[in-house]
Amino acid sequence: MQPDLLNPAHIATLLQHFRRHSPLVHCMTNDVVQSFTANVLLALGASPAMVIEPEEAVQFSAIADALLVNVGTLTADRAEAMRVAINSAREAGKPWTLDPVAVGGLTFRTDFCRELLILRPAAIRGNASEILALAGMQAGGRGVDTTDTIRAALPAAVALARQSGAVVAVSGEVDHITDGERMLAVPGGDPLMTRVVGTGCALSAVVAASCALPGDRLTNVAAACGIMAQAGSRAVAASQGPGSFIPAFLDALYRLDGEALA
Amino acid sequence: MQPDLLNPAHIATLLQHFRRHSPLVHCMTNDVVQSFTANVLLALGASPAMVIEPEEAVQFSAIADALLVNVGTLTADRAEAMRVAINSAREAGKPWTLDPVAVGGLTFRTDFCRELLILRPAAIRGNASEILALAGMQAGGRGVDTTDTIRAALPAAVALARQSGAVVAVSGEVDHITDGERMLAVPGGDPLMTRVVGTGCALSAVVAASCALPGDRLTNVAAACGIMAQAGSRAVAASQGPGSFIPAFLDALYRLDGEALA
Amino acid sequence: MQPDLLNPAHIATLLQHFRRHSPLVHCMTNDVVQSFTANVLLALGASPAMVIEPEEAVQFSAIADALLVNVGTLTADRAEAMRVAINSAREAGKPWTLDPVAVGGLTFRTDFCRELLILRPAAIRGNASEILALAGMQAGGRGVDTTDTIRAALPAAVALARQSGAVVAVSGEVDHITDGERMLAVPGGDPLMTRVVGTGCALSAVVAASCALPGDRLTNVAAACGIMAQAGSRAVAASQGPGSFIPAFLDALYRLDGEALA
Repeated sequence: MQPDLLNPAHIATLLQHFRRHSPLVHCMTNDVVQSFTANVLLALGASPAMVIEPEEAVQFSAIADALLVNVGTLTADRAEAMRVAINSAREAGKPWTLDPVAVGGLTFRTDFCRELLILRPAAIRGNASEILALAGMQAGGRGVDTTDTIRAALPAAVALARQSGAVVAVSGEVDHITDGERMLAVPGGDPLMTRVVGTGCALSAVVAASCALPGDRLTNVAAACGIMAQAGSRAVAASQGPGSFIPAFLDALYRLDGEALA
Repeated sequence: MQPDLLNPAHIATLLQHFRRHSPLVHCMTNDVVQSFTANVLLALGASPAMVIEPEEAVQFSAIADALLVNVGTLTADRAEAMRVAINSAREAGKPWTLDPVAVGGLTFRTDFCRELLILRPAAIRGNASEILALAGMQAGGRGVDTTDTIRAALPAAVALARQSGAVVAVSGEVDHITDGERMLAVPGGDPLMTRVVGTGCALSAVVAASCALPGDRLTNVAAACGIMAQAGSRAVAASQGPGSFIPAFLDALYRLDGEALA
Repeated sequence: MQPDLLNPAHIATLLQHFRRHSPLVHCMTNDVVQSFTANVLLALGASPAMVIEPEEAVQFSAIADALLVNVGTLTADRAEAMRVAINSAREAGKPWTLDPVAVGGLTFRTDFCRELLILRPAAIRGNASEILALAGMQAGGRGVDTTDTIRAALPAAVALARQSGAVVAVSGEVDHITDGERMLAVPGGDPLMTRVVGTGCALSAVVAASCALPGDRLTNVAAACGIMAQAGSRAVAASQGPGSFIPAFLDALYRLDGEALA
């Protein structure tokens, strides 16, 4: 499948939808990136909320516009809360997104994420190793880092999209996003972003939110990748290393001008 | 009840007390804002410690100068640890402060926070929706955001203060602080602060610490709001968005000059 | 025991080893400093991963190059996961490092850390109060702050190193590092670093990683302290307070030039 380049006008449109609709995003994410994820969503005009007790997660998933499930610091208790929250979101007709952090190398989360695939995620976002492992095609990366190239992961992404019904986004030098029928490519970003914890996890939160916004889901997920790549490139240009990148990135997300992008 | 404007000299005095007494603050707070909360307290010269295992929380609440209970990512286990920590703080004569994050919309935390009201908090700090919901006057906001105006929440704040014995602070464009008999108003701050996660939660930690410092409790809680509003205004002036606001805000807290404020 | 000053060439060497070997560090650390710890390791070229479910922690400890155990927000569940992860690391021949946060003042973690000493940590990193308390020579500090001087803690550090087989690092105005036979001193750093949460905890993560890198363990641990002190001094010079220190510190770690240091 040959990818088409994402039209930048779609990035501008998604950005406007973020600010107009301020989607409420239920984030069940890992302990390392909670603050950064919340700040990324806030900078875009979305409204994040982290709710984890099973009883509350069930209640909140039905209220929120979108649910993010990220298994970075999964525990057995958290897995159970995620299961019931996903079911509640589905019953309420709300989209949920899976970030299969480090799947492949660790058995417990790999089994859990594969089990979740039958619960019809709206989107799945990972690096090449994670997508390969989730599709059952390879054993996975080294910790949370990818050891595989994007190109090698594309057949897995297509297969995973067809199997699960999700839009699958593979992050890398050029992001590739597929629904199993079409594929979009989103260039941009910078290797410096891999030296800052949570850029991928926060992208998954933006992807989750994008699935609740008006428009075509494949295009929205690709545009979510585009927003992060655009802000990332601007932040790299304005920073001296991974430390100054963080505030510059949040500022760039906040200041991205939809009209200029279009 | 007509509010009086807080005298800026009280902000300067509280700031000096922070630096002179370096209150040790036991923070039982949510997973999203732990690092920011600790850095805010450290910037002011206080000493934060996050201790959550029930056995340790009981021991530490009696040692620390003040206890903060924030229900942002409440779990059943954490609720039990908070209960025993509060009782230990009370037995040791140490003040405890409640931040009822997102109370109203979520049943588990709403029931829990209402149950805690009989344990005589020294202070309660929330937005208008949270204060209304805690007082039983309205169903609550949208996630962690407020959907109600300050003015609508003032009768609830007064009722809550009278019922619980706490000083109640309602955050908003102008903060209002009441002990049920008097009311103080604190202007300042900036809407940009609502685009940074944890500014409200960190204020609650500063409020908690202020209750352990010399002086009138109502004045101290209002001055805590004043410190954060002053630092917030300075940081907004020095930043390009919510990302650069964060370091600028911590710098401003660290550099606030009590004498200049007075 | 008279300390020798660390040769700066060893700092340069360790820095090069970080970038060449990119050690994979399994961090079982406290809830407050996870993001900062990960960003510090990433800035140095290492690869952090936080894995906490017991089943996964056992699996990952054997895969990772080094394990960090930090008891800052210890719970009974987390303690059990740490125990099995340490045993797994030992069986796989991987070094593990202990950060005994606030040991002395709190019974549960003090008992736990003393129990861990028989599991042969490669390194232990703490402030003077923590090292004294862990060695059973004093009751401990005030929360996470030290109330004792480095000099008073040196006999405890030597005794602890001899008893446990660990290299023991005592952080302070001048860091002292001993294996029970030799002692190295590392000056540098700045008091501003005590106003930023996680600088000590992140140092322990760098110490943990250094134990997996080529070279003498005592020298590596001292060089890890040296890297952080060098970056700290540079960041203080480039910042206006504890807020701007954080990005400046990560930038400095990322940009430290091994050749210039040597």
